[in-house]
Amino acid sequence: MNAPDTDSELRAAAAARQRATLAALRTALLAVLPPHCLLFDEEDTRPYECDGLTAYRQLPLAVALPENEAQVVAVLRACRELRVPIVPRGAGTGLSGGAMPVAEGIVLSTAKMNRIVAIDAQARTATVQPGVRNLAISEAAAGHRLYYAPDPSSQIACTIGGNIAENSGGVHCLKYGLTLHNVLRVRMATADGDIVELGSCGPDAAGLDLLAVFVGSEGMLGVVLEATVKLVPKPPQASVIMASFDSVVRGADPVADVISAGIIPAGLEMMDRTSARMVEPFVRAGYDTDAAAILLCESDGLPEEVEEEIARMSAVLARAGATAIAVSRDEAERLRFWSGRKNAFPAAGRISPDYYCMDGTIPRRRLAEVLTGIDALAVEYGLRCANVFHAGDGNLHPLILFDANAPGEFARAEKFGEAILALCVAAGGTITGEHGVGIEKLDSMCEQFTVEEIAAFIAVKRAFDPARQLNPDKAIPTLDRCAQYGRRKVDAGLFKFAHVPVARHA
Amino acid sequence: MNAPDTDSELRAAAAARQRATLAALRTALLAVLPPHCLLFDEEDTRPYECDGLTAYRQLPLAVALPENEAQVVAVLRACRELRVPIVPRGAGTGLSGGAMPVAEGIVLSTAKMNRIVAIDAQARTATVQPGVRNLAISEAAAGHRLYYAPDPSSQIACTIGGNIAENSGGVHCLKYGLTLHNVLRVRMATADGDIVELGSCGPDAAGLDLLAVFVGSEGMLGVVLEATVKLVPKPPQASVIMASFDSVVRGADPVADVISAGIIPAGLEMMDRTSARMVEPFVRAGYDTDAAAILLCESDGLPEEVEEEIARMSAVLARAGATAIAVSRDEAERLRFWSGRKNAFPAAGRISPDYYCMDGTIPRRRLAEVLTGIDALAVEYGLRCANVFHAGDGNLHPLILFDANAPGEFARAEKFGEAILALCVAAGGTITGEHGVGIEKLDSMCEQFTVEEIAAFIAVKRAFDPARQLNPDKAIPTLDRCAQYGRRKVDAGLFKFAHVPVARHA
Repeated sequence: MNAPDTDSELRAAAAARQRATLAALRTALLAVLPPHCLLFDEEDTRPYECDGLTAYRQLPLAVALPENEAQVVAVLRACRELRVPIVPRGAGTGLSGGAMPVAEGIVLSTAKMNRIVAIDAQARTATVQPGVRNLAISEAAAGHRLYYAPDPSSQIACTIGGNIAENSGGVHCLKYGLTLHNVLRVRMATADGDIVELGSCGPDAAGLDLLAVFVGSEGMLGVVLEATVKLVPKPPQASVIMASFDSVVRGADPVADVISAGIIPAGLEMMDRTSARMVEPFVRAGYDTDAAAILLCESDGLPEEVEEEIARMSAVLARAGATAIAVSRDEAERLRFWSGRKNAFPAAGRISPDYYCMDGTIPRRRLAEVLTGIDALAVEYGLRCANVFHAGDGNLHPLILFDANAPGEFARAEKFGEAILALCVAAGGTITGEHGVGIEKLDSMCEQFTVEEIAAFIAVKRAFDPARQLNPDKAIPTLDRCAQYGRRKVDAGLFKFAHVPVARHA
Repeated sequence: MNAPDTDSELRAAAAARQRATLAALRTALLAVLPPHCLLFDEEDTRPYECDGLTAYRQLPLAVALPENEAQVVAVLRACRELRVPIVPRGAGTGLSGGAMPVAEGIVLSTAKMNRIVAIDAQARTATVQPGVRNLAISEAAAGHRLYYAPDPSSQIACTIGGNIAENSGGVHCLKYGLTLHNVLRVRMATADGDIVELGSCGPDAAGLDLLAVFVGSEGMLGVVLEATVKLVPKPPQASVIMASFDSVVRGADPVADVISAGIIPAGLEMMDRTSARMVEPFVRAGYDTDAAAILLCESDGLPEEVEEEIARMSAVLARAGATAIAVSRDEAERLRFWSGRKNAFPAAGRISPDYYCMDGTIPRRRLAEVLTGIDALAVEYGLRCANVFHAGDGNLHPLILFDANAPGEFARAEKFGEAILALCVAAGGTITGEHGVGIEKLDSMCEQFTVEEIAAFIAVKRAFDPARQLNPDKAIPTLDRCAQYGRRKVDAGLFKFAHVPVARHA
């Protein structure tokens, strides 16, 4: 009869410790933030328990919503004193669980820092606070006929701070680059509350390129306080080709051909029949639902450039065996062609209770082969998979359809997803194109990288945040985890190289 | 009489220690490299005592020229055992002293690793060893009508490994990006001899973007073993405009105007009258030596695109008050127009015994103001200064003319150079656009960055190379040096943040 008593005593002691931490945290945060910038009650913190990867949830101890830089710094310092970890959060639209809270930590939301500081039309830059929404930048620049190019499908809601943390992509990134290529400068606060400027508005900066290492670091290295991003001129004309193919393989080949012909389309997307059929009844985009695959190829620029590029791309597609080719005749039709692509994920909800979106990349010329491999895996795992993705970037988004209420289906979907990523890595690709690693792909990181490479990541994380205050246990697996993943022997010497701390949560 | 004895005893002991180190080093290196890959004698090591910044010289203990990756790793491990620092070196064409040896260390030259591993015309990439010359990549790709875009003026001689270390630029980088934007993947060896792959051939890579932090890290983080770079199609047509202006200020304004008009020229260079007059008798490029400033604006692409862009740029230049505008009529004339620009630095040697080339960047729209400021500084320091530079990038190359044999002139030239860089920083620019920090601009780093920012650089350097084996005391000043530079108070707390080692050589 002793054991249960001891057990309940331990639980009581743990609960008492947690209450004490929470009380100290409440006092410390209320000393630096006004009450309307803090959430402690469960009904208030519940909306922050997950991001777009809803399968992973965790309530935080509290949510801080600072209104200015000084308050961010004060929160960071208060948490450092109390050794309370911090998960930074933009709009929470991420798809890899990067903004999922940790149980003993707080969420630091930048939602209230949503001011556009300056639009410089001559330098073609916008300087904004981290909580400004992606689309709000383009809206603010529209008067100068400029816009911010990277366009994640969540662009109405997602914030530039979150885009920087995840190095977000989008349809336009083939031509205009990822977030990394469109951010010139970031002011950020380190875990210690030091303010550091990364990058510059000049063509190059002296010193190490810490801006590049910061973009895509998933909230592990610092909190964005302000960013200066590039604006690009709105092209006067845009047209899109919709081409049908009678096999996925035949549709995949011209993707590399278009690029090899010296054309960088403004967008080059592929949908398979499953995707077209799931979206067409929903949005009536005019898709050929008999085709095995559809390619959408956009050109933008001066009217003559667009005309010439559309003609050249059409010729490449025809030579590759397209069974039908349609070119948008006006802006309304162009937007209609795109509406199906943009609504593919919501449409998946109409034909399947649940879906799981992957994000691997592969070299373009291996598209056909990897898509065939995914088909084979779908049979092996007994699950359907829709493919709708950034073909020009070689960035796949296999959408695994499953029913979470059917016993074992979620676990099978996860295994299927891991197998797809392993296939991408084997084809010379990577495990994430634009969604980040977050909590979701920690094991796949062990698939992608050698332990030497993981050790280098850990060493850089430690350089910025030795106490592991910021978003601990995301994005980079511990070397223990790599060893457990089992593919590779981890040399004990490496632990020394990377100054690996004993992971608190692993 | 005791002091000198003690002194000479100390010197003798130091010399004995050095002999012992050298003997141990010789044994260790001969155990891992064949004799023809090692230089120990002064007559052999002398050519390695400096790079293109010849004012700073230092003989190394030895020079290692490994022929393959295993030998590079073996040299790194042997030196780590003996605690002998290593300065990696490409062709030694750098202009900031980044490849200057350290007295107690060796030079690791990648000159013998000069194999082109693969040209993939479909993926448009070249995979090369670090000692491959910049121009050799384009030569190897020419059969596919592809080339490697970044074109430092030393491109005949400089190697891709050195380009990566310095994030080199060139005339074409305005349109095609710096080295950073043209390197997809690097395999490198860390100071410990671990082999790590950075970047990928996919559009994004999971994990921290260590490729970006590695490019431009000036040999401090690792040694390049192999790189995969982007190739771009050779444009079928190129033309260049030569426009004259009767004042530097009037010539500077249209630089921002051209870019604001939505044109990214293939090159946009400026020369002032001093530069035109020093180069014209030498190369007979047909320059207007009465003009206060000349702009060279190049367009490349399809013939119709070039025609349209040349017309639009000519209109902008005419509106800005150009006193003469000439467009190259054929390829021979285009090359002639460029020949003056490309030979400006050698030509400086004809009118001045010595010259010192600076490399600051500024926002384009502040060109006129900064050029006027440099004129004022030239008067203040009593030295002539020629300006010939990448105007479109805002990347200045003031060429300070001096005579090293005239007492005090070199010191005055150095001070003048520092003042120019301070002016660039004050205008919102940076202290180096493409030449790197090296040994030359350590003090200017303290001008450019806060101590918090320098501390972040040091922390990252330590993450890769805790023992400071690789190119110590280059590129990043110690915090002690920042404190001595005196502009800013260095908070003792930061030393802890950055885990700053006691500098061995500071």
